[in-house]
Amino acid sequence: MAETLSVFKYDLLQQDKGSEARRGRITTHRGAIETPVFMPVGTQGTVKGLLPETLQEIGAQIILANTYHLYLRPGHKLIQQLGGLHKFMHWDRPILTDSGGFQVFSLGELRKITEAGAAFQSHLDGSRHLLTPELSIEIQRALGSDIIMVFDECIPHPAERQYVAESTNLSARWAKRCRDAMPAGSSASALFGIVQGGMHSDLRQQSAEQLQEIGFEGYALGGLSVGEEVALMYEMMEFSLPLLPPDKPRYVMGVGTPENLVEGVARGCDMFDCVMPTRNARNGNLFTSFGKISIKQAQYREDSGPIDPRCSCYVCRNYSRAYLRHLYMSGEILSSVLNTHHNLYYYQQLMTEIRTALEKGTFAEFRRNFYQKRDR
Amino acid sequence: MAETLSVFKYDLLQQDKGSEARRGRITTHRGAIETPVFMPVGTQGTVKGLLPETLQEIGAQIILANTYHLYLRPGHKLIQQLGGLHKFMHWDRPILTDSGGFQVFSLGELRKITEAGAAFQSHLDGSRHLLTPELSIEIQRALGSDIIMVFDECIPHPAERQYVAESTNLSARWAKRCRDAMPAGSSASALFGIVQGGMHSDLRQQSAEQLQEIGFEGYALGGLSVGEEVALMYEMMEFSLPLLPPDKPRYVMGVGTPENLVEGVARGCDMFDCVMPTRNARNGNLFTSFGKISIKQAQYREDSGPIDPRCSCYVCRNYSRAYLRHLYMSGEILSSVLNTHHNLYYYQQLMTEIRTALEKGTFAEFRRNFYQKRDR
Repeated sequence: MAETLSVFKYDLLQQDKGSEARRGRITTHRGAIETPVFMPVGTQGTVKGLLPETLQEIGAQIILANTYHLYLRPGHKLIQQLGGLHKFMHWDRPILTDSGGFQVFSLGELRKITEAGAAFQSHLDGSRHLLTPELSIEIQRALGSDIIMVFDECIPHPAERQYVAESTNLSARWAKRCRDAMPAGSSASALFGIVQGGMHSDLRQQSAEQLQEIGFEGYALGGLSVGEEVALMYEMMEFSLPLLPPDKPRYVMGVGTPENLVEGVARGCDMFDCVMPTRNARNGNLFTSFGKISIKQAQYREDSGPIDPRCSCYVCRNYSRAYLRHLYMSGEILSSVLNTHHNLYYYQQLMTEIRTALEKGTFAEFRRNFYQKRDR
Repeated sequence: MAETLSVFKYDLLQQDKGSEARRGRITTHRGAIETPVFMPVGTQGTVKGLLPETLQEIGAQIILANTYHLYLRPGHKLIQQLGGLHKFMHWDRPILTDSGGFQVFSLGELRKITEAGAAFQSHLDGSRHLLTPELSIEIQRALGSDIIMVFDECIPHPAERQYVAESTNLSARWAKRCRDAMPAGSSASALFGIVQGGMHSDLRQQSAEQLQEIGFEGYALGGLSVGEEVALMYEMMEFSLPLLPPDKPRYVMGVGTPENLVEGVARGCDMFDCVMPTRNARNGNLFTSFGKISIKQAQYREDSGPIDPRCSCYVCRNYSRAYLRHLYMSGEILSSVLNTHHNLYYYQQLMTEIRTALEKGTFAEFRRNFYQKRDR
């Protein structure tokens, strides 16, 4: 087992008494990350529409970038040559990179899986590529990622048990190859394993054990939020998260709604990422303390109030719903910019409130209030 | 003649010795504007992609908004009801509004001109409207514009002399109706007349005289930068600007390139507006001290340098050409945001340098250097 001498560590600061929720701190050589944390998604080396300074202002501690996209364009070697992704995109806080697995498996007919890796055709130009565990690590290291994810197969839902079992074993073998591809004793980056196993508890358990045998700096749950019912997703979290070592960070990938974050935290999750706040923003769907609103609706045409009277973000302090609706209806760039700002602020603020509640020992109360505001 | 009791005034601070260039100050009840000035265009109540705070940071003293667009969407009455355009778009410095004339006349087959005004069909939904001088003033006043432009016919180029002569007379009658539609003694807004006359010196002279007989707080040259050769445009400026009273601001509408601004200033112009810096930005065309570059070009793929090594804007301080090319090629929103920021900074910086040169009495030297940098 190759252990790195990274400064990377996770400190469990507080365990909630009424739930599995926990407050902690991840230390990286680019600074600390207070958990539970939500990571905005910056697919192509930019969180769509926002300046890095704005991201920092609204409290983003770490962002996620996509290996698949940056590998194809502009290329990881170019980014490495230019000093790494942090310098390239002008972001000096930590970056987590996904492995490319999820994107490749979203390509459908354009990809083919073998023991070696995933052969696929670029969605940009049709060019052929073979993404292997080793190449995925090479790309993520070239980008200068602070948290590198293992290359795995993301299992669709629903899927045959036999397929899930075989895929989960393949992902475990790939995880080992990723670990082996990380240089021992010199990397500033952490490597996270990804628990697969579909919606089968025994396969999830097997996957969690296989990964811990290899040994990682953190563990993620993959293959959730892929179309299954939310109750089943929570069930999988409840079952899988306790299988992971308590002294390592736990990350549920691609999750989710504000409700999913609160419930994920309650089940012991430390890290989340999702395109929801950014993508919804561009579609005019805005998060508020009382639920989601669609700014394009005619009811906001003359509305002089802010998106959310309880929100103190830059957008809510300075712009009316009527103006934001006008920008959306006019297809203005500023619509995406302001909506994204608000939605990410909402997500960051939610996580801040969760951490504060955990610190004060009032998480149960916070959780009740969170739902009560939405029921009104 | 209806004179307003507006605080609006123009002070001629310095007349250049070697040219018609002049430095001045426009006072409005929303603050002073140092001239010569370039006004970024915020067509639909937003300068595309930029926060108002960013516009202020890069030195924008006044912006332009479009009557035609805001009349159709979201409607001037809505904006008035919400407290006016300044509040609506979160911009507290002066706003100049065009009259809608230029946009209506760009509609081609969709509009018809009569003595009453311009009948047209909306480019958005085909609805029928009649824009009159009185309605144009009503709209601009409802928006809360600080500088209101008269409703005129923008003459295409080339055009028959007979048509130009009749149109120029019609615009003069409309200008009088605009003046009469402005309430006497109570308006905080200034009203500017627009000199037409096509490319005919005698008609330009006639137009300038007709307008001064009516009396305005400022005078613009319309119907330039409409496809004529640049030498002809400069000739029209040279002939027309001296016909205007020296104690009022002079505005050349829709102009232009950095070269046009320098030459316009040299011929006595105080105010400019153009979509060029903002529209070019979205197309990846960036202004520099050594000319324009197209960021999409392959030569910038691995270029770690800034857009312009001589530029000290936020974008040039923090991002490489390679990153900006990547954003452009990826169709990222941040591409438009950063490119617009740089281009408008370039324009504002150019005007600052022009004003400084005028103050120091070194405008001729500035003008020589400006061209020398571009020749390299």
